Amino acid sequence: MTDLGAVKSALRQQAIELPSWAFGNSGTRFKVFAQKGVPRTPQEKIADAAQVHAYTGIAPSVALHIPWDAVDDYAALAAYAAEQGVRVGTINANVFQDDDFRLGSVTNPDPAVRRKALDHLLACVDVMDATGSRDLKLWFADGTNYPGQDDIRARQDRLAEALVAVRDRLAPHQRILLEYKLFEPAFYTTDVPDWGTAYAHCLKLGEQAQVVVDTGHHAPGTNIEFIVAFLLREGKLGGFDFNSRFYADDDLMVGAADPFQLFRIMHEVVRGGGYDPAAGIAFMLDQCHNIEAKIPGQIRSVLNAQEATAKALLVDTDALEAAQRAGDVLGANAVLMDAYNTDVRPLLAELRAEDGLDPDPMAAFARSGYLERIAAERVGGQQAGWGA
Amino acid sequence: MTDLGAVKSALRQQAIELPSWAFGNSGTRFKVFAQKGVPRTPQEKIADAAQVHAYTGIAPSVALHIPWDAVDDYAALAAYAAEQGVRVGTINANVFQDDDFRLGSVTNPDPAVRRKALDHLLACVDVMDATGSRDLKLWFADGTNYPGQDDIRARQDRLAEALVAVRDRLAPHQRILLEYKLFEPAFYTTDVPDWGTAYAHCLKLGEQAQVVVDTGHHAPGTNIEFIVAFLLREGKLGGFDFNSRFYADDDLMVGAADPFQLFRIMHEVVRGGGYDPAAGIAFMLDQCHNIEAKIPGQIRSVLNAQEATAKALLVDTDALEAAQRAGDVLGANAVLMDAYNTDVRPLLAELRAEDGLDPDPMAAFARSGYLERIAAERVGGQQAGWGA
Amino acid sequence: MTDLGAVKSALRQQAIELPSWAFGNSGTRFKVFAQKGVPRTPQEKIADAAQVHAYTGIAPSVALHIPWDAVDDYAALAAYAAEQGVRVGTINANVFQDDDFRLGSVTNPDPAVRRKALDHLLACVDVMDATGSRDLKLWFADGTNYPGQDDIRARQDRLAEALVAVRDRLAPHQRILLEYKLFEPAFYTTDVPDWGTAYAHCLKLGEQAQVVVDTGHHAPGTNIEFIVAFLLREGKLGGFDFNSRFYADDDLMVGAADPFQLFRIMHEVVRGGGYDPAAGIAFMLDQCHNIEAKIPGQIRSVLNAQEATAKALLVDTDALEAAQRAGDVLGANAVLMDAYNTDVRPLLAELRAEDGLDPDPMAAFARSGYLERIAAERVGGQQAGWGA
Amino acid sequence: MTDLGAVKSALRQQAIELPSWAFGNSGTRFKVFAQKGVPRTPQEKIADAAQVHAYTGIAPSVALHIPWDAVDDYAALAAYAAEQGVRVGTINANVFQDDDFRLGSVTNPDPAVRRKALDHLLACVDVMDATGSRDLKLWFADGTNYPGQDDIRARQDRLAEALVAVRDRLAPHQRILLEYKLFEPAFYTTDVPDWGTAYAHCLKLGEQAQVVVDTGHHAPGTNIEFIVAFLLREGKLGGFDFNSRFYADDDLMVGAADPFQLFRIMHEVVRGGGYDPAAGIAFMLDQCHNIEAKIPGQIRSVLNAQEATAKALLVDTDALEAAQRAGDVLGANAVLMDAYNTDVRPLLAELRAEDGLDPDPMAAFARSGYLERIAAERVGGQQAGWGA
Repeated sequence: MTDLGAVKSALRQQAIELPSWAFGNSGTRFKVFAQKGVPRTPQEKIADAAQVHAYTGIAPSVALHIPWDAVDDYAALAAYAAEQGVRVGTINANVFQDDDFRLGSVTNPDPAVRRKALDHLLACVDVMDATGSRDLKLWFADGTNYPGQDDIRARQDRLAEALVAVRDRLAPHQRILLEYKLFEPAFYTTDVPDWGTAYAHCLKLGEQAQVVVDTGHHAPGTNIEFIVAFLLREGKLGGFDFNSRFYADDDLMVGAADPFQLFRIMHEVVRGGGYDPAAGIAFMLDQCHNIEAKIPGQIRSVLNAQEATAKALLVDTDALEAAQRAGDVLGANAVLMDAYNTDVRPLLAELRAEDGLDPDPMAAFARSGYLERIAAERVGGQQAGWGA
Repeated sequence: MTDLGAVKSALRQQAIELPSWAFGNSGTRFKVFAQKGVPRTPQEKIADAAQVHAYTGIAPSVALHIPWDAVDDYAALAAYAAEQGVRVGTINANVFQDDDFRLGSVTNPDPAVRRKALDHLLACVDVMDATGSRDLKLWFADGTNYPGQDDIRARQDRLAEALVAVRDRLAPHQRILLEYKLFEPAFYTTDVPDWGTAYAHCLKLGEQAQVVVDTGHHAPGTNIEFIVAFLLREGKLGGFDFNSRFYADDDLMVGAADPFQLFRIMHEVVRGGGYDPAAGIAFMLDQCHNIEAKIPGQIRSVLNAQEATAKALLVDTDALEAAQRAGDVLGANAVLMDAYNTDVRPLLAELRAEDGLDPDPMAAFARSGYLERIAAERVGGQQAGWGA
Repeated sequence: MTDLGAVKSALRQQAIELPSWAFGNSGTRFKVFAQKGVPRTPQEKIADAAQVHAYTGIAPSVALHIPWDAVDDYAALAAYAAEQGVRVGTINANVFQDDDFRLGSVTNPDPAVRRKALDHLLACVDVMDATGSRDLKLWFADGTNYPGQDDIRARQDRLAEALVAVRDRLAPHQRILLEYKLFEPAFYTTDVPDWGTAYAHCLKLGEQAQVVVDTGHHAPGTNIEFIVAFLLREGKLGGFDFNSRFYADDDLMVGAADPFQLFRIMHEVVRGGGYDPAAGIAFMLDQCHNIEAKIPGQIRSVLNAQEATAKALLVDTDALEAAQRAGDVLGANAVLMDAYNTDVRPLLAELRAEDGLDPDPMAAFARSGYLERIAAERVGGQQAGWGA
Repeated sequence: MTDLGAVKSALRQQAIELPSWAFGNSGTRFKVFAQKGVPRTPQEKIADAAQVHAYTGIAPSVALHIPWDAVDDYAALAAYAAEQGVRVGTINANVFQDDDFRLGSVTNPDPAVRRKALDHLLACVDVMDATGSRDLKLWFADGTNYPGQDDIRARQDRLAEALVAVRDRLAPHQRILLEYKLFEPAFYTTDVPDWGTAYAHCLKLGEQAQVVVDTGHHAPGTNIEFIVAFLLREGKLGGFDFNSRFYADDDLMVGAADPFQLFRIMHEVVRGGGYDPAAGIAFMLDQCHNIEAKIPGQIRSVLNAQEATAKALLVDTDALEAAQRAGDVLGANAVLMDAYNTDVRPLLAELRAEDGLDPDPMAAFARSGYLERIAAERVGGQQAGWGA
């Protein structure tokens, strides 16, 4: 039997980090559709993110993307965030949008470009110092499009060299979160294509480097929860970039494409001790709301993650273990499915009501008139986007 | 035994159509890297395409993309092309880059948007009339990102209605080439995801509608040459958009990722009668040269297609049939591989020399100084791109 | 608002057909694990299937596989089934387990083998006449392993010829259900790889030929519910082979790998009119219980399908349509998800209780002692299996 | 410029190991087609393998599969192999074909089954001692079919424990080669699904454990040559199981599905120092000749591997490096493709002639009458197969 009080306590601990870029315009290579009221400044992005936290209660921090969110005074930005009721979280280093990076950043065959990329990474640590951020998330667009284009192995050497330099720059409480991705924007090779590559580098970098799992960055058929369980066992899971996908890196709302997978992932997180705040796992969203409204899209995503977590916490672990040990295939599966099939929305509505939140965050935000307000107010200026 | 003279004759008949957009800037959603000398006008694109034909001898036409290549006077554009030694080929209708098309074009739930999209398609037939083009290529970015977002079946009704309207507007010698694509930019459904869908629509539209196969638009594991053989058998193969891919719709140079697949496709084309000009198959490139030089990238692609074709023409069909009928698995495979393993580059160099072309088109173009010239001349103005 | 009474009525109409072979031993190419109590005869398979119907109330028929279920007197077998409370359903023709079929059955390059295969198909129609079956399900293991091995197009000609011969043999009320499959046991090509191929053949065969969708027979990333919606729109959906898969044709219990996908499929079935008995859609299971107990595995599968159906019936179609027409992406998705997130198990338990069934079929069957009884009784003889 | 003499020398060093099981019957879960003349004993398998070596000159060893190749006197078997002109190579441990292994072998939840599995692994080391084998190849069919079925993490603990026990049993010159596989026969999880998992275990096991790459064991879109390059850089590549695939683990002849991929893999092997015999990489075939003749199938496979190797050795590494350093995308790709497009068959025929072999091994073997002889002689007895 599951203790509902304990489940509620655990749910109250949940913290999901929002990406500043989810509030700006995004799209595909074919078209970026502009939306009304989209932020023009990092401050406006943070203000929007604060709305998500205000209605869900579990999204207390915002990740920045540098240089998309570059400001002169990061301490002031952090203070602004605090005023809005949130804080600045992970710093994402962007080394893929300068013409110099056509053939890569830290793995570029040209040492001058590599230096430029590394300098940007180090500058991002400066930002972390100013914002008080713990994590530097490194995703590299580096790779090649054609066989023979560059030396696969030499690119690993260059990558390792850059990672060491960044690691050496970190303060003791700071971490590198190294992200892997199968493909895109490089098509033949990416320089960190899979968790094994990220893991091998992090192992050499030591305790201040951890692997981050983006749920959209795998080959078809990959069992993501296996990777989660494995990395937790090795003490090398640093965090998640949550989103969902049907085919490629679609960056859809988490839980929208395969809610059962999200549940299975959260089940392994809970089972592997990763839900304990002491484990230091960063639960982040990394999404694009290309066609849907952005703030409601983020609220929906946070709720999807919360529902999956609630179901994972409801798993009757004693019954599960007993069935597993007995080799009872159908029985063990049934214990897991019993939790998944539970409608947790009433429980979560109750939890919110107890905590002074509206039981229905989507409806409450819609009623608030915030979207209409920003659409009216945010006229002129340059809407934020991916900056490409 | 294969008759080399017949092979050469067949190779001399080859015609590969170039896409105007391959000469403009392109990229991924992350970044479009600008290159020096990129065309600013449709005329400059045509001039660049003419270079490819000048050095390869088998790329006599250029496909246009409307509105990317919109001009006031299409007849004049066609005349300009003729002066450059090429002609205007297929017209590609673009109904995906206006904010109105956020939820689709001809399948949009809003009838006003559907009307707008259809009007553009009909306007493209006007362009065809002016340029003397035979084919209207229709690729729709239409689809949905989330389950439930729209009614899958109603979208088919809307699509069918628009296709009929376009078909009714065609002159007797004109055709619709309907393209399918598994995903991107829509992620949950696309409205024409596979050849079966395109085929079913074309069947109802009658003889003036044919399916076009883009080699990058399939799910992993799809046997493209099977589709080619099947559509040829049904008389419904209209043409190809050639490119290559490792994972998604990478739009790399054709033959770069899987030259053996390209050979197998050309083998089915030849075997199914599709290489006969009377079959009316349009062999087009549809590629993006995101990081490599564009004109040499096109030359390389044309050469790759030519080499695959030469190998396909070299297959000893009598020996192949005999082995197939005998159920000789290894023997039949060996006949095919014998052609594939042949180095056809000497044969093609000889062919070019006989026809007054440089035996090595890549080297000859590099020596010509054209790239340096356009880099110097094409300064200022707006470089052509996907227009997003 | 959804009318719960109507939902219950609809659920009472549901009929899921069980495969006789699910009760026999099955496995992978690596190993078939034997289980105690496995049937030795078609009669014992039918008796086991009747148990599934007895506890679920919605599995009234059993599909046969010929020659696995070959008997001397099919009318007597049908009578036996009726005594057990079920009836004989679809006849599955097996033309892949004779050494003659190494290079194919109806598409074999050898005309004598083709004749042998066709004779078996025609004999299966004789069985249908005797059992009163409506549907002949045709899945062909035919294909090739190596490029060049056989002529892709000629194999289509041979296939078409065989299908016409079978169609001509059918009584007016009988149908061909033509199944497609991407790969396995042939690896390079299969002769009916996708729905488009099956559809094109069925179109030519006329009204007595329909496409059957096996949910495990697609390439990764394929949107199965799109195919379902499309075939329903064309009047060419004949039925389903339900199962689930993580990577290939895993034949796991339906709903076990992706319950959300199963719900989406059932939603399109309901929306497209396919749930109406008049539509004639055959809902069949096609599964292998390699490691789990077989009868409980079938009960679990039937329940999974029933739960997905209940959720699909709960979709608030008015609200969905309104949101779709309004272009409300998040709203429309939310309507669908609202139904999916509902825990329908209490409703189904209530339904069963009203109909005199145990509310918990899995528990009730376990308590019945049937498994222990057959394990004790069915000793000696040859356990049923795939017969390979 | 490439030194042809050096290429020939390198080609003379090549050694490809043959799998004893390739000479026995194999098939899919649907059917195993029997062939005439198939071996009945390990000795007959070795005799067949010796034929492959006799005609190719580069297949000097045979891998055994225990218990498929179990004999009373392994030293005598090794002596028999020597008489045939070959030697016993890698020992493959089979812990997946006993009913006890239904839920796994070394990861089974039942400690008694784990013990049984481990005992078999240790017994395989005894075999190695008797045959003088260096490598123990471990592929585990272990995994789960359903979410929740067993504890993913606990299975890793059990796996690690077994691997340590085996490692401790090895003589200093012996190695574990740990193989990974994405799926099949387990469908939801496999316990060693990817190179990262195998790598992490081997890292802990130390120098006597290396990763083996089976070219058919990856998810779609996986870049295998990247993995090869990475493992070589880490000193953790132990060997290959060569075969080819279109969709799943098809176990077709290596080079049959994607000869360009095989070339790219061999290019990374050569570039990363793995072709040097001192690197200790085991180049093994692991294939099933389900429909084609087995000995010629093996000869064809060895030739395919040899051709890919010859092309890889022909890469002009100086030109390649220069183009890579210069960021010349098209130029670098062209250098690689120049080697790939070379027809190396004349060179290899010349090499064979110089070494006293027939220039055309396939034709020479066919002329030898060996197949007819064994078909006539090997009558009665039990043909070897996978033993399932």
